[in-house]
Amino acid sequence: MEIKSYKKSFDHSYCLGVFTTLELLLNKPNEVIKILLSEKGEDNKGILKILNIAKKENIEVEFNGKLVDRISKKENTYVIGVFKKYTFNIKDKSHLVLVNPSDMGNMGTIIRTALGMNIKNIAIIKPSVDIFNPKVIRASMGSIFKLNIEFFESFEEYRKKFLDHKIYSFVLNGKFELKDLEIKKEEKYSLVFGNEGQGLDEEYFENISKTVKISQTDEVDSLNLGVAVGIGLYKFMLGE
Amino acid sequence: MEIKSYKKSFDHSYCLGVFTTLELLLNKPNEVIKILLSEKGEDNKGILKILNIAKKENIEVEFNGKLVDRISKKENTYVIGVFKKYTFNIKDKSHLVLVNPSDMGNMGTIIRTALGMNIKNIAIIKPSVDIFNPKVIRASMGSIFKLNIEFFESFEEYRKKFLDHKIYSFVLNGKFELKDLEIKKEEKYSLVFGNEGQGLDEEYFENISKTVKISQTDEVDSLNLGVAVGIGLYKFMLGE
Repeated sequence: MEIKSYKKSFDHSYCLGVFTTLELLLNKPNEVIKILLSEKGEDNKGILKILNIAKKENIEVEFNGKLVDRISKKENTYVIGVFKKYTFNIKDKSHLVLVNPSDMGNMGTIIRTALGMNIKNIAIIKPSVDIFNPKVIRASMGSIFKLNIEFFESFEEYRKKFLDHKIYSFVLNGKFELKDLEIKKEEKYSLVFGNEGQGLDEEYFENISKTVKISQTDEVDSLNLGVAVGIGLYKFMLGE
Repeated sequence: MEIKSYKKSFDHSYCLGVFTTLELLLNKPNEVIKILLSEKGEDNKGILKILNIAKKENIEVEFNGKLVDRISKKENTYVIGVFKKYTFNIKDKSHLVLVNPSDMGNMGTIIRTALGMNIKNIAIIKPSVDIFNPKVIRASMGSIFKLNIEFFESFEEYRKKFLDHKIYSFVLNGKFELKDLEIKKEEKYSLVFGNEGQGLDEEYFENISKTVKISQTDEVDSLNLGVAVGIGLYKFMLGE
């Protein structure tokens, strides 16, 4: 396999840096194709950990600083984890559901936020940003390797698979204020957010869900999607 | 005045794009030095509004597409607002207090979030990221022109000026869980957040404030600062 600058069409991707590569190795060792190392990082403690795990898991390690620089486009990257793209089915627990997410930076932050809020199953309704783009992985700080993400062609397809979930959809003019909701630990929730530009189709979601609003002044058009997801998930933070 | 690519040392800065330039003109007309327009944007409705306001406020308009492209580094920018950097004293209301903010993208999102959560006075403890960098202004979507931001040399200097504020500082190991706090509308609050790398000096803030934690799983190191600020301010969302 030839290692070239990342493209969406690849079957593999890269995670850059010591911290995220460790998360990759610890959480998805079977998906790792190889580890690329720069000679500059030889004394780094994290690199020693990475070398130990690679040895134990029988993962190929290549010392090639030039290639690391070329792929990472940053001079201070010492290590790159090359891994196969994978998919996991989400479990029958509470979900974060993202409809047509379109911003890479937000996507990584949202994944990290979901893990922080104990939501480990994310459904994404296509079309979607490329979640395996190295920028998303970096922004997620490796959280992406710790949770399940499943893609669906439409919200209907998702809904049919999880008929007993209570659906809460976050829209600007939601009927229920987030602060007033009562959350029950034993319920399974689908917490649905639209994308940065369009939000959700309010008419459709009014029919099939409780629409929720996060109160805000009318001096801003809307909150940043990552911030809105954080506020929403914190309210619903549940044990699993 | 010569218009060159932005540098932190300049006494002026730029806001890029129709939406943010309109916010600049509507909220801080006295700080505007001139408007740069690209010929490509002539039929844009927002541009017509901008031209109207500029005429009324007697603000110079220059058609210079090449200069717009050079300053914005993006081909789809039609308009740039050139403005004097300014400072405003914060009012004696509830404040967001940012200690040594260091990330430009987060800074813009945080400003937008604060405005959405009805906090219109932000104190920044130096050193700080350059809040007038065009990237911050873009990420704030022009919100920066609608609120007051004041810089302080130290947290002590800030505190002495607002002695009757109740200080809540957000730290990973805070004594009080955010969800359990009781907020009183008539109080004035100082909501303090550290920066992305170091957080706050917990020892210092334990002595002078109530320390607050936002519950999260231990699978993430911390939440993104913009997300944490959003969760915190939403809880405190107050009328002014």
